[in-house]
Amino acid sequence: MRNEEIVERPAEQRTITKRYTEEAVRFIESHREQPFFLYLAHSMPHVPLFRSKEFEDKSLRGLYGDVIEELDWSVGQVLESLRQHQLDKNTIVFFSSDNGPWLTFNEQGGSAGLLREGKGSTWEGGMREPTIVWWPGKIPAASVSAELGSTMDIYTTAILLAGGKVPGDRVIDGVDLRPVLCETGESPRNTMFYYRGTRLMAVRHNQWKAHFITQPGYGGGPTSHDPPLLFNLNEDPSESYNLAEKHPQVIQQIRQVAGRHTEQMEPAPSQLEIPLR
Amino acid sequence: MRNEEIVERPAEQRTITKRYTEEAVRFIESHREQPFFLYLAHSMPHVPLFRSKEFEDKSLRGLYGDVIEELDWSVGQVLESLRQHQLDKNTIVFFSSDNGPWLTFNEQGGSAGLLREGKGSTWEGGMREPTIVWWPGKIPAASVSAELGSTMDIYTTAILLAGGKVPGDRVIDGVDLRPVLCETGESPRNTMFYYRGTRLMAVRHNQWKAHFITQPGYGGGPTSHDPPLLFNLNEDPSESYNLAEKHPQVIQQIRQVAGRHTEQMEPAPSQLEIPLR
Repeated sequence: MRNEEIVERPAEQRTITKRYTEEAVRFIESHREQPFFLYLAHSMPHVPLFRSKEFEDKSLRGLYGDVIEELDWSVGQVLESLRQHQLDKNTIVFFSSDNGPWLTFNEQGGSAGLLREGKGSTWEGGMREPTIVWWPGKIPAASVSAELGSTMDIYTTAILLAGGKVPGDRVIDGVDLRPVLCETGESPRNTMFYYRGTRLMAVRHNQWKAHFITQPGYGGGPTSHDPPLLFNLNEDPSESYNLAEKHPQVIQQIRQVAGRHTEQMEPAPSQLEIPLR
Repeated sequence: MRNEEIVERPAEQRTITKRYTEEAVRFIESHREQPFFLYLAHSMPHVPLFRSKEFEDKSLRGLYGDVIEELDWSVGQVLESLRQHQLDKNTIVFFSSDNGPWLTFNEQGGSAGLLREGKGSTWEGGMREPTIVWWPGKIPAASVSAELGSTMDIYTTAILLAGGKVPGDRVIDGVDLRPVLCETGESPRNTMFYYRGTRLMAVRHNQWKAHFITQPGYGGGPTSHDPPLLFNLNEDPSESYNLAEKHPQVIQQIRQVAGRHTEQMEPAPSQLEIPLR
């Protein structure tokens, strides 16, 4: 689609990564004299997977690896364009993803590495994403942070970086990540709420994650846990060793955090035609 | 022990990493005028875990992470000593480990990341190790190889690097890794044989690994597979997706490789007092 108009149907997906990239680079070039916001949401590596001719058998990791090679090329093109137009010191780039691997598709669905389960679940393999933030001169190269952040925080952070004001007439779920990005302080985020549709499944508070309900991403119903399963994500990011019996006071604290959250929460109407269940 | 003599019993393990390191640095200093071979086999991070006072709560990963921090410090001391004595361009350093995590000990046993199972098993989590080889000026920094190598190859490689001759009067299991280390060619190793005691459990040939018998590292007996389980380790390093039905010709080839190996193999007498079963 271009804006609201359907320009190609079915889409030729073998060249979709390349064409998105070219469009992004054109956008940067034509907006280089003014502030701009570019949201480049690649369709790949969502199944069904496609890559252009130049990336066939480029990787050892099969079709999925080839697709990743082309996405890597794409990111390089975007950064190169920023450098070429001397915008690199004045542009912040976030690179992340929206969910973990779709395990139903085996090797073609991706891998969550050491994290448990995948897309659709509220285990870390479904919801924790690697993220790279690039801002030469402001963010030291190769710095690594174990602080918490969420894609929800990009909104707040980007507004504040641009010198704007975050709206005060509604509840904003995002926090200001500037201190942690620029290494001047800690992330204000110490809690994550893990939802499946409108159901609160798990809560993370600092290094602790409590699962009140678990459910496989695909194929399998919900299981309630009382006490909840408790994992120390710093020491056990794979969620292998349940520590609920050892730390009842941590569970007590997370129950309070969850209770305060649930009391204040008003589910918004679904933005999808078919509501998620 | 110092040579054959018991010098401390029980060993004070809280300072063992530090004392091994100091001894290694002293050895480098006192041998800096001549060729030397140093084998620094840390006791840590084998359970029970210990770290010195300076490394308490140094990491987010608990006791295990603290121990790793101290080992990282130790490696730094060794490399720094080589630099100080201008030996860094003339010394090759291998950093590796002997097996995967001892999963029975949960967070204190370590983690194999995305690899399946752990110590004692012939899944990748038990036997595949990360390895870093350091040789400034000869091995480009940050180069990564997907070629195969084994700790068995260090013997052959080190002899050849030192200008010696590999003995011809016996079968040598190691190969010459010089080409792959210095990026002048491929590794001569394309096969790995996975043993548990004297029993051949699995065979890797190029990217393919066939499991004829599997057994959990601890707690559980052997299960035979006919046809063997077959995994493509390039596309599926976690050994999640059995491709045996799809690739009978690969299994045929691996059976031949295994057959040739088994015909030639004479198990050596055990070097342990109590033979492994």
